[in-house]
Amino acid sequence: MYSFILQRRVSYAETDRMGYLYYGHYAAYYEAARVEALRAIGIRYRDLEDRHILMPVRRMECRFLAPALYDEMVHISVRIPRLPELRMEFMYELRNEQGKLLNTAFTELVFYDAKLKKPVRAPEELVEKLRPYFTAPENTN
Amino acid sequence: MYSFILQRRVSYAETDRMGYLYYGHYAAYYEAARVEALRAIGIRYRDLEDRHILMPVRRMECRFLAPALYDEMVHISVRIPRLPELRMEFMYELRNEQGKLLNTAFTELVFYDAKLKKPVRAPEELVEKLRPYFTAPENTN
Amino acid sequence: MYSFILQRRVSYAETDRMGYLYYGHYAAYYEAARVEALRAIGIRYRDLEDRHILMPVRRMECRFLAPALYDEMVHISVRIPRLPELRMEFMYELRNEQGKLLNTAFTELVFYDAKLKKPVRAPEELVEKLRPYFTAPENTN
Amino acid sequence: MYSFILQRRVSYAETDRMGYLYYGHYAAYYEAARVEALRAIGIRYRDLEDRHILMPVRRMECRFLAPALYDEMVHISVRIPRLPELRMEFMYELRNEQGKLLNTAFTELVFYDAKLKKPVRAPEELVEKLRPYFTAPENTN
Repeated sequence: MYSFILQRRVSYAETDRMGYLYYGHYAAYYEAARVEALRAIGIRYRDLEDRHILMPVRRMECRFLAPALYDEMVHISVRIPRLPELRMEFMYELRNEQGKLLNTAFTELVFYDAKLKKPVRAPEELVEKLRPYFTAPENTN
Repeated sequence: MYSFILQRRVSYAETDRMGYLYYGHYAAYYEAARVEALRAIGIRYRDLEDRHILMPVRRMECRFLAPALYDEMVHISVRIPRLPELRMEFMYELRNEQGKLLNTAFTELVFYDAKLKKPVRAPEELVEKLRPYFTAPENTN
Repeated sequence: MYSFILQRRVSYAETDRMGYLYYGHYAAYYEAARVEALRAIGIRYRDLEDRHILMPVRRMECRFLAPALYDEMVHISVRIPRLPELRMEFMYELRNEQGKLLNTAFTELVFYDAKLKKPVRAPEELVEKLRPYFTAPENTN
Repeated sequence: MYSFILQRRVSYAETDRMGYLYYGHYAAYYEAARVEALRAIGIRYRDLEDRHILMPVRRMECRFLAPALYDEMVHISVRIPRLPELRMEFMYELRNEQGKLLNTAFTELVFYDAKLKKPVRAPEELVEKLRPYFTAPENTN
C-alpha cells in the first residue's frame, strides 16, 4: 500500500452559495492528491501523457459527510490499495484542520494509449516505482 | 417514477487537455438536470432555499463510459426512482447526439434546515408535486 | 456590426459564498455567447480548430456593476464591432431578467495556426460570413 | 507598495482542449494571490467577511501573453500599488518556471458592508497593516 497526504485550501472560487466547497470540485482535489502522490515517487503524469499514455477516470464514488468551508485547509489523504495492472485505484479521505472527516472517495482509472487508441496495461515504470510499497507486507510471516 | 431530459453543450471552459469534458464537471451537469427536472413540475430549488431548506449531496457514484467531447450536445436524462422522505435520489444517463451512452450516475441528497440546523424530512410541497408520478403505476393492473 | 443574444441561467456550481456568480465564471459566459453568435451565422468554432486554427484570448476587460444571483436567467448580449483581420473583438453586456445591467466586457482574440505555430489572419470563411453585417451600413447615404 | 509571490501548479481540471490554462481560470489565480498576500500581513479575508465586510471585484483587466501549460508551476506576483480607501487595487504578473511572462492583470475591489447594504471605506485594521509598506519609502532620502 502506498499513501500520501496533500493540503489544499478551499478558495472563494470553489465555494457555493451555502459557503461550502461545491460538491463538484472534490474531483479536482482528488486529482491534485493523486498527481502529487505519483510525483512524490518520481512519476510525473505529464510525462506519461507525453508518451501518449492517458489515464481517464472510469469510476468515482464519493461520500460527503460534512462540508468543507471557505478558507479551511483540507488534508487530502490518498491511498493506492493495490499495484495497478489494467486499472489503477485510489482511495481518498478528506479532513479539516480539526481532523474531522469530511469526505471519502474512490476512483478507478484506466490506461489508454492515445496513439494505439486502445486500453493498455499500466506502464512498467509506474509499476516498478510502486512495487516496493506492495511487496514488503507480503514477505512478512 | 419521474423522469426529465436536459440538453447541454460541452463548452471549451469544461474541456480538459484530452479534449474531453473534465470528469469533475459532470457534477454540474447532474445539478442542472435535477434543478430543471424539479422546475418542470413547479418546484424551484431557489424557493426551497429561501425557506432555509438546503439539499446537500451526500453520495455520488459515477461511471465514465465514453468521453463527452467539445461542442457536443449532451442529453442528460434524470430519473427520480422513489418519492423522497429523508433522502432524495436521482439517477442520470448522459448520451451524445448519436445516442451513445457516455456516463451513468447516482446522487443522494438530504434535506437540511439551515435555521434549525438539522436534517429534516422532504418538504410537503415537493412530495405532493411528485406524488402523481408514483401512485399511478401502482394503481395499474 | 453583428450582434447576438444568449440566455444562460446561473447555476449553483457557479455561485460563490456571497450567493453571486463568481467573478471568474463570467469568462465562460462570454465564451458561450461568442461561440453561439458564430454558430448563428454558420461558423462552428470546433470546425476552425479541426482545421488547426485556434482563437486564444489575448485581452479581457470586465466591469462588474451588479451581482448576477443564483438561478437568475442572464441575458448576454454580444457584439462584434468590426470585421476581424489579425484580431477579433467582442463586446458583451449582461443583464438580468429585469433588464438591469450587471456586467460589461470586452475581449480580443487572435488567430493562431497550430500547425504553422504562428499567428495568422482571420479565416476567409469567417470574414465572408460576417461581411454582410458590416458593408451594408457603410453603403447607406 | 506591498508585493507578494504565490506559486500554483496548473492542474488538469484547469486546462482546456488546447492544453492551456483556460482563460477564465486566471481569476482564481488572482484571488489566491491576493488572499495569501493579505494573510502574510495578518489579514484573513475570511475574518473580514465574518464582520460582514465583503470585497467584490468591480473591475478586471487581463492580458494573455503566452499560455500557462499543464503541470507548470506558475509564479503569481501580486502588488498593491496604493493604500486602499474606497477601492483596493491589485496588479498581477504571472510567470512560468523559466521566468517567461505569461499574463499581466489588474483588479479593483470595493468594500461593501453586507449589514448596512452599502459601500464603505477600507477597514481600519487593513489600512493599518498596509501603512508601513507605503509610508516608509516616502520617508527615505
